[in-house]
Amino acid sequence: MMDKLYPWKEINGGISAPLGFYACGVKAGIKYKDKYDLALILSETPASAAGTFTRNVVKAHPLVLTEKHLADGKAQAVIVNSGNANACMGEIGDNAASEMAKVTAEELALAPEDILVSSTGVIGQELPLAKVIAGIRTAAKEVQALKGKVSESEKTEYAHQAASAIMTTDMVCKELALELQCAQGTIKLGIMAKGSGMIHPNMGTMLCFITTDAQVAQDKLKGLLKAATDESFNMVTVDGDTSTNDMVVILANGLSGVAPEGQEWENFSAMVREACCTMAKAIARDGEGASKFLEVKVAGAASLEAARMIARSVCSSNLVKSAMYGEDANWGRILAAAGYSGASFDPNKADIYLNGLQVAAHGQGLPFSETEASVLLKNTDIKVDVVLGDGKEQAVAWGCDLTHKYIDINADYRT
Amino acid sequence: MMDKLYPWKEINGGISAPLGFYACGVKAGIKYKDKYDLALILSETPASAAGTFTRNVVKAHPLVLTEKHLADGKAQAVIVNSGNANACMGEIGDNAASEMAKVTAEELALAPEDILVSSTGVIGQELPLAKVIAGIRTAAKEVQALKGKVSESEKTEYAHQAASAIMTTDMVCKELALELQCAQGTIKLGIMAKGSGMIHPNMGTMLCFITTDAQVAQDKLKGLLKAATDESFNMVTVDGDTSTNDMVVILANGLSGVAPEGQEWENFSAMVREACCTMAKAIARDGEGASKFLEVKVAGAASLEAARMIARSVCSSNLVKSAMYGEDANWGRILAAAGYSGASFDPNKADIYLNGLQVAAHGQGLPFSETEASVLLKNTDIKVDVVLGDGKEQAVAWGCDLTHKYIDINADYRT
Repeated sequence: MMDKLYPWKEINGGISAPLGFYACGVKAGIKYKDKYDLALILSETPASAAGTFTRNVVKAHPLVLTEKHLADGKAQAVIVNSGNANACMGEIGDNAASEMAKVTAEELALAPEDILVSSTGVIGQELPLAKVIAGIRTAAKEVQALKGKVSESEKTEYAHQAASAIMTTDMVCKELALELQCAQGTIKLGIMAKGSGMIHPNMGTMLCFITTDAQVAQDKLKGLLKAATDESFNMVTVDGDTSTNDMVVILANGLSGVAPEGQEWENFSAMVREACCTMAKAIARDGEGASKFLEVKVAGAASLEAARMIARSVCSSNLVKSAMYGEDANWGRILAAAGYSGASFDPNKADIYLNGLQVAAHGQGLPFSETEASVLLKNTDIKVDVVLGDGKEQAVAWGCDLTHKYIDINADYRT
Repeated sequence: MMDKLYPWKEINGGISAPLGFYACGVKAGIKYKDKYDLALILSETPASAAGTFTRNVVKAHPLVLTEKHLADGKAQAVIVNSGNANACMGEIGDNAASEMAKVTAEELALAPEDILVSSTGVIGQELPLAKVIAGIRTAAKEVQALKGKVSESEKTEYAHQAASAIMTTDMVCKELALELQCAQGTIKLGIMAKGSGMIHPNMGTMLCFITTDAQVAQDKLKGLLKAATDESFNMVTVDGDTSTNDMVVILANGLSGVAPEGQEWENFSAMVREACCTMAKAIARDGEGASKFLEVKVAGAASLEAARMIARSVCSSNLVKSAMYGEDANWGRILAAAGYSGASFDPNKADIYLNGLQVAAHGQGLPFSETEASVLLKNTDIKVDVVLGDGKEQAVAWGCDLTHKYIDINADYRT
């Protein structure tokens, strides 16, 4: 998946690849009997930590708690459950989130403030707390038992269970580990994510957890995470429905002994951004209802913000998404969706390409072969290029088509 | 449709009900052979005029021209074609729009600047100008022949042809006439509109034309039209796709001799707003793909803007729309859509009702009978009430559900 020109390389170990990180997943029976549904990530030592959270006014209870626990810029463990979002439950929900942190802390001999809590699943239903607590106790024992082990394959297997435990209707388990050679040593990064291109029963929550053994101050880590999120997860447009539970968290425990500076910092930042973009693309691609993956690139924009707004608008237009499902080279819908994005641009300078075939120039349609277009659009990957004549900024958004299956999935899942 | 408490009443005559207005529709053969596709509205005397236009950066050629022709606040005729949007065609498109104004002016012995031009249909295809010009000549003759006629039923019939001529995939012809008794005489209002709840081949363009014989200064007319549009057409949320051709235009020729002031102005304003809301609801209701009409009312908001943002967000959420199609009382999606609307509110004070059944209180789910909910949601009209505890402002948005048929219609219409 990674290009050879990058200064980093892919390794095994998933979320627990970086030094001093351990992770596991257990089957707590929250919603299903035989599914990994509780993940625990532990760092041997306190780590710098930062998070970005849903912009929804309605925030799930664990998010509120986790934001509080991140106030000091430190954390040492993350506990995540799937199968229940623990959202819109009032005091019961607040208590459940606190209890998850408290029990995790007890079992790991840490302070509750060093535990980050996250949930995904159906909203408005009470978390089966007894099951979750029992699961936490099991997970804590497992993860501590891993501390002595050095077998890479075993670490990788447990990390995979953790990544599986946060899946809901995801078809594909999303995890990755990378390492970057620096002058003073090697920095490793682990990442795991959940979410799918089409919205789902669980409100299409997007979760991502990142671990690294780099030494990074909390303020720098926070800035880096925000930039990476803006470029990756915030560019996955599905249908505009933003979950109450979305969360991206990064922990940097410094155990590599390497504090990247200068060019090494640039490389490290690029590695974090690339890891996030890889997860974001996997999320866009992984839709039960989706039949095609869309990548919309806007170039030649006057500002980065304009490029992003236009890319997101085109990629989330129901009309564009339906046309791509129908393999219809409907450039008019693309230009119109760019037009109502809220960004200002000169439509008379806009060129449009579909999988490389130019279909419009200077805001007007070109004569093109419908046969050729139709063949190109039979691809499961559709690349839309919108080239403006306004400047030099560019952005990419990822999404998927709008299909009959989307309606099937979302018309009646709750009951 | 009109409540008896209103100070106005419904009359016949459609768009040409007000004194001195004449309208007709002809079959110019623009896209189909045997369909009314060109409408002409004429006022005997110059009228105060105002318009509101699409907020899409990509504006169709007739819109650009019409905005110019409205600069002096006066107009005397409107020429509208369906079957072709005359959008994204560069110079050819600008010329075609100018030509439509020029020929109409010639035939009616008016200045081109007094003609407003409007189009709806597929974008990016050349307007068959010869057919349109021939149609304009026929329509101009017809409309002028009407001047002597006083038969109300004949006027009504011709007005209906005009309203039919602007339909594209609309299932229902949308027109209405109202009259308001004032101390000095009677003010009449005619309105016709097109657009449908689901987006369509023609980009779901929304057009509306309003005529009145009230005496209204242009600046007052402009303010009134903006307020009415904000409350009506801007609250129809379909799927966020905004057409390049959307246009609402009002002409007031003053021939009633009544210049409403004070309470009469309030009544007149309310009549215009109510007429626009009636058209807006008809548009939301009229979707080929739609199986249900949604009305989302937000009350108790801190500001009008917040109420509108939340109402629109809930009404346009694909998740909410899919749930309504599936007759699933999924209040969590409603609260979540309110949450990402961009408006700030206290979710812990939000109550939610579905066709009168309260399903959530203070941001949390209530135990309710799924059977009762399911019966209520079998209605083709679904009313969602979101009652906030933040203030006294309220707003209503209209839309429809998201169905399999929507995908059928939009996946492949162009080719």
